[in-house]
Amino acid sequence: MDNYAGTVVTTRIRLARNLEGYPFPSHLKSDKQAKEIIRLASSGLSRLEEFRLLYMDGVTEDEAQSLIENHLISPALLNNRRRSAVLINREENISVMINEEDHLREQCIVKGLDLRFAYETMSEVDGCISGTMKFAFDEQLGYLTACPTNLGTGLRASVMMFLPALTLGGIMPRIMKSVARLGLTVRGIYGEGSAAEGYTYQISNEVTLGVTEPEILEGVEEVVGKICKLEEAERERLATGASALEIQDECLRSFGILSNCAKLSCEELTKLAANVKLGAALGYIKLNDISKIDELVKKMRPSNIMEAAAKKLTALERDVYRAQYTGRFLKKITQQ
Amino acid sequence: MDNYAGTVVTTRIRLARNLEGYPFPSHLKSDKQAKEIIRLASSGLSRLEEFRLLYMDGVTEDEAQSLIENHLISPALLNNRRRSAVLINREENISVMINEEDHLREQCIVKGLDLRFAYETMSEVDGCISGTMKFAFDEQLGYLTACPTNLGTGLRASVMMFLPALTLGGIMPRIMKSVARLGLTVRGIYGEGSAAEGYTYQISNEVTLGVTEPEILEGVEEVVGKICKLEEAERERLATGASALEIQDECLRSFGILSNCAKLSCEELTKLAANVKLGAALGYIKLNDISKIDELVKKMRPSNIMEAAAKKLTALERDVYRAQYTGRFLKKITQQ
Repeated sequence: MDNYAGTVVTTRIRLARNLEGYPFPSHLKSDKQAKEIIRLASSGLSRLEEFRLLYMDGVTEDEAQSLIENHLISPALLNNRRRSAVLINREENISVMINEEDHLREQCIVKGLDLRFAYETMSEVDGCISGTMKFAFDEQLGYLTACPTNLGTGLRASVMMFLPALTLGGIMPRIMKSVARLGLTVRGIYGEGSAAEGYTYQISNEVTLGVTEPEILEGVEEVVGKICKLEEAERERLATGASALEIQDECLRSFGILSNCAKLSCEELTKLAANVKLGAALGYIKLNDISKIDELVKKMRPSNIMEAAAKKLTALERDVYRAQYTGRFLKKITQQ
Repeated sequence: MDNYAGTVVTTRIRLARNLEGYPFPSHLKSDKQAKEIIRLASSGLSRLEEFRLLYMDGVTEDEAQSLIENHLISPALLNNRRRSAVLINREENISVMINEEDHLREQCIVKGLDLRFAYETMSEVDGCISGTMKFAFDEQLGYLTACPTNLGTGLRASVMMFLPALTLGGIMPRIMKSVARLGLTVRGIYGEGSAAEGYTYQISNEVTLGVTEPEILEGVEEVVGKICKLEEAERERLATGASALEIQDECLRSFGILSNCAKLSCEELTKLAANVKLGAALGYIKLNDISKIDELVKKMRPSNIMEAAAKKLTALERDVYRAQYTGRFLKKITQQ
């Protein structure tokens, strides 16, 4: 299988689960009940590789922001911090949110398009947790969830895609409509309601009920594959079209600025990095590995910068740090 | 003597001369008279190193434009092309315009601040020409010229200066006033009335009458030296002031864009090149030789590009050529 390195950024699998005999998180009777669920989930995972448990009322604002920026928790997990927690593995690609909308939101993120591997990883995690707790399950409906949109498999398969050519070509609205008819949705990268940042979209299944897990995975994979082919054809058109020089110019200038600046905001980096990726995809910029640009953008998020610098930095100090780091980083990944 | 490499771009000496017994160019009686003056001047110079003679009615529009862009002729020389000509030496740093405002306008341009060398070079040229023609000279007034502002020595000593810090600091208006009181003027680089392009100004003596040539040279040199010191102090202030980061950022980005773009207009190159020079002057950008940037801007003027490409190019083709050439050029002059 082609993993569409220049188009698919990451694959995410998320499972929603709830414990039998407990009200959904928004209706829990006491903090004690919430803590019990946290305890059960962690003891289930203790059999697997090392997971660290973070109680949400025990993390600082900066730490919480960092977890959100790295997609390890959702902003909603902070709504009731006395009752919520998260389990995170050492590699930081698997997390289990506890007492968000459902008792458990288990998820894993992998690079490139690899739905099966991500799903198998989550099945293993899910299996471990189910060893210490009984999930709320109905023979007819499947897994029970707080919101009916997650009912059934509780599975959400999401693929983050980099679609500059389809965006610039004005084709995304049409694609979003077609995708919706196939039971999938397209969103910005920070989930529902967020705008498409840096030409990046998240494609995921909408329907969780009345379909099997393999059917969901196959459906998403098929649509993602089709969109990748459309994007590739559109890139071809862009590279040979009337505005090719304009695009090449913008891509090169974006690379030039990122390689040479004294301060750089997170928003500007995100925007210019998308142009650099587009330039690499169209062959205007030679990069050793196009996915390194995603890694850079992630590393340069405010909270990750402060973690790297090991101290609190002002916005301006972060912008200076980001500019210097980005320049060095790009130099490294463009050297042959 | 310090030659202020980071501040003084070039020094120009110009002598205005007229032949005795001939009306000034605007009052010449016939084309025949004009041709005679051209012949006399060229035969005078034939004793010196090789000069080529260009009749203005024999050059194409592109060639004429190139001569103007390279400061070898003034636009005014084209006003009456049947009667005007120019003599240019092989190095293209000495030119003698014939039948512009005066019968002869002899000039030479040298890099950096070197008024004496430029004046001696022109004296030699002037001496050669005076061997074949008698200049209009009055014991009381000195050399007679078409315009009274050139009367006397007929000498104009101009120094092209790069003054970014004084410009950004808003100090130029005050300097221009002070300089005027000392009998000097400050103009944009294409002479009277042109705006200061790329932080570059031309400082020259206004008074030519009632002073000796050495007094003029000393006066200009002294003022230029003072302005250089003011500029240096202001650069120091800039580099340590509140907006230092802003300025560094703009200088670096300008360098980044010039090193990485697919098309580049002459105006943008001029503007960004000035920032690169400023960045080099402030130590933000390491260049082997700061004057190479002036060389680049000169080489990339439209007519010079077409001469280098040896064919007529559209504006867009020139912009692409300029972008590619500039990128390669900057790479070369930043390598250690």
